[in-house]
Amino acid sequence: MNGLLTDLYQLTMAAGYFEAGKSDEIATFEMFVRRLPQGRHYLVAAGLPQAVEYLETLQFRADEVAWLRSLPQFSRVPREFWSYLLKFRFTGSLAAAAEGTAMHAKEPLLVVRAPLIEAQLVETYLLSMIGFQTLIATKAAHLLEVADGRPIVEFGSRRAHGPQAGLYAARAAYIGGCVGTSNVMAGYQYGIPLFGTSAHSWVLAFDSEREAFRKLQDLLGDRCAYLVDTYDSLEGTRKAASLGKPIWGVRLDSGNIVSLAKGARKILDEAGLRHAKIMATNELDEVRIREILAAGAPVDVFGVGTALATSSDSPALGAVYKLVEIEVDGVSRYPSKKSEEKATLAGAKQVFRYSGFDVLGRMNEEPTADGDYVRVLKPVMANGRRIAPLPSIEEARAHAQLDRPRPGAWVDLSAELLKIQP
Amino acid sequence: MNGLLTDLYQLTMAAGYFEAGKSDEIATFEMFVRRLPQGRHYLVAAGLPQAVEYLETLQFRADEVAWLRSLPQFSRVPREFWSYLLKFRFTGSLAAAAEGTAMHAKEPLLVVRAPLIEAQLVETYLLSMIGFQTLIATKAAHLLEVADGRPIVEFGSRRAHGPQAGLYAARAAYIGGCVGTSNVMAGYQYGIPLFGTSAHSWVLAFDSEREAFRKLQDLLGDRCAYLVDTYDSLEGTRKAASLGKPIWGVRLDSGNIVSLAKGARKILDEAGLRHAKIMATNELDEVRIREILAAGAPVDVFGVGTALATSSDSPALGAVYKLVEIEVDGVSRYPSKKSEEKATLAGAKQVFRYSGFDVLGRMNEEPTADGDYVRVLKPVMANGRRIAPLPSIEEARAHAQLDRPRPGAWVDLSAELLKIQP
Repeated sequence: MNGLLTDLYQLTMAAGYFEAGKSDEIATFEMFVRRLPQGRHYLVAAGLPQAVEYLETLQFRADEVAWLRSLPQFSRVPREFWSYLLKFRFTGSLAAAAEGTAMHAKEPLLVVRAPLIEAQLVETYLLSMIGFQTLIATKAAHLLEVADGRPIVEFGSRRAHGPQAGLYAARAAYIGGCVGTSNVMAGYQYGIPLFGTSAHSWVLAFDSEREAFRKLQDLLGDRCAYLVDTYDSLEGTRKAASLGKPIWGVRLDSGNIVSLAKGARKILDEAGLRHAKIMATNELDEVRIREILAAGAPVDVFGVGTALATSSDSPALGAVYKLVEIEVDGVSRYPSKKSEEKATLAGAKQVFRYSGFDVLGRMNEEPTADGDYVRVLKPVMANGRRIAPLPSIEEARAHAQLDRPRPGAWVDLSAELLKIQP
Repeated sequence: MNGLLTDLYQLTMAAGYFEAGKSDEIATFEMFVRRLPQGRHYLVAAGLPQAVEYLETLQFRADEVAWLRSLPQFSRVPREFWSYLLKFRFTGSLAAAAEGTAMHAKEPLLVVRAPLIEAQLVETYLLSMIGFQTLIATKAAHLLEVADGRPIVEFGSRRAHGPQAGLYAARAAYIGGCVGTSNVMAGYQYGIPLFGTSAHSWVLAFDSEREAFRKLQDLLGDRCAYLVDTYDSLEGTRKAASLGKPIWGVRLDSGNIVSLAKGARKILDEAGLRHAKIMATNELDEVRIREILAAGAPVDVFGVGTALATSSDSPALGAVYKLVEIEVDGVSRYPSKKSEEKATLAGAKQVFRYSGFDVLGRMNEEPTADGDYVRVLKPVMANGRRIAPLPSIEEARAHAQLDRPRPGAWVDLSAELLKIQP
């Protein structure tokens, strides 16, 4: 089914390239963002394993091809194209920034080099998959910057853009630095730690809040987090505290989190439950978390839903996928769209990462700046197959924590670009 | 796999309800929004067939249950619960607003009545699926309100929150009134008309723009839409016009759409191509479309991507799913969370739609207002199975066009609620 997860114009162009005898031309496309989304000062790359899986399995089923042939748009397309499509596989190469890598505007997140039709067809899926996971990993990292060392749990599956978006949001948020998620499938598929104990309906389903809490304690022991705001948050905290150990803590989900957290802390401490944690939830984002912490609220853990799983203040990454080179019979051409962009570097680019700044250069060149550097874009696929196993999600998460730039620590790349222009 | 597409706390509560002997209690949950998203004055319900399919097929595989048992959260859960989960099926009933129905804040989009565990477990998926599609159908309808009769095509797959979100965004946008989408899978699965002909890379892949245009014309005939802004939009339009018929039109994707559309219209008209259309794209939203039309730009069709497929100005619906009734041995209880909400109607509600206003009443009551009305929530499933075929996507789209309320034509439901409170 993968083949149809694309925009129609990728298929009309594919048919047109085929007709025009361009099947053998080798194209290079780069994915990048022209500018960072509002409120972000870097990106955290994510989504690569899903992109690679797509490229490795992409094909068109016979019934899908038969349906495509029936579309009025394709009435003039010759039969040879449909035979081609039935045998279609991605045979190209892919270089990409590893998951968890901090990235800046204009830096390629990935570079695809493949026969023109193949490289074109995969655009929509790659932009959507890498774009979304990078968007959410980036949001998680920015949320964590204001959380001042407190852990954040991703709770946004219900507000994500469908069930699959919920799963990938959980995955990307974990790479971006969250400690876990409520999404059970994300635990099953990716081994991400799972959080969550009960909703208001749990309390409402019992005759008393106290009974509901006791049943939860019986079930969960020292993992028991009581949701205390069904009737009155402090009264609820008192009931939870009166049950004593075992307890993980309480969750505050409404009202003035600052004063309630202080009150709840006092109640728990006085009951000898100094190790019991306070989790805050309810429409949290960077602004709210900063306010809560600035006011000295003793919140130990934040649960963030909508703002994280939809990146609600900037809900799209705006990544683009641009043709930067076409090779015909061994001769390369470097197309460029508009005159003002001709000042940019021609062809596929590499990000050379020095200590504290990046230099954007040609993929196969050595950069001119002094000092040690690493090549950020690494070969991932060749001849349509992955070259080596990808880093695990834990490695990606660890990489994101190490690679996180300080605000202002990056040079303006547009200046560098001109400097090293050939 | 469906069973794991949920929040962990749904499963801890399920285990807890099971342990507490609450498996036979019958719960009723309602899904609604407390307030409309910013910038929206009504909702367009969407996503019901996918929700029903989920409820009909929901189950847990043996390997999934074995994995759940291994989680530390479930160490105290008795073996009987896992046997229960292996046989789990949704056996309840569902009432819902038909797709395409205009809905207001506080009005239930759907009502689930089922054994407590079942009704609880399905919350996350229902919120995510109905919430997202309703969000996008609503956005499409609001975009169309400002398009003054011009058609809008959904072009946002690349910016959607993953490939599945792109597919459902296309589906929902069509229900909300769009004429079609670029998403090929949406054409294949749902029969939605497909649009899109070529990208900038098409032009760049040929030696000249003129050659690229001629090849496209050869391929697409009178469906040929030339993307004219690769180098210079008006020069591109002249090249397109010089090729004469057949032509569908031109697409403007950058620059000052107003002046370019006027210029392009003149060029096309002077070439005798009065029927050739002008499509505008490039980060359009309600504000831009209103500006373009207010300036008298002769744009015939709009293509909207990011703003539509992510509902970027309000990227979450904020729907909730609330327990409103529990029945034990034939006796009903009406839980309510907080004192200030006790003034709302107890139990499951029905939306009685009169001409020009709605009344919210108990599900099985007759409303007190004079005049003819329809019951907006209709029975969809009983005993875990659908009662009758759901309306087709074309019927849903037609319903959305008829049911679209004028701004201000709705009464404040909070007042009505109190008026008819029992």
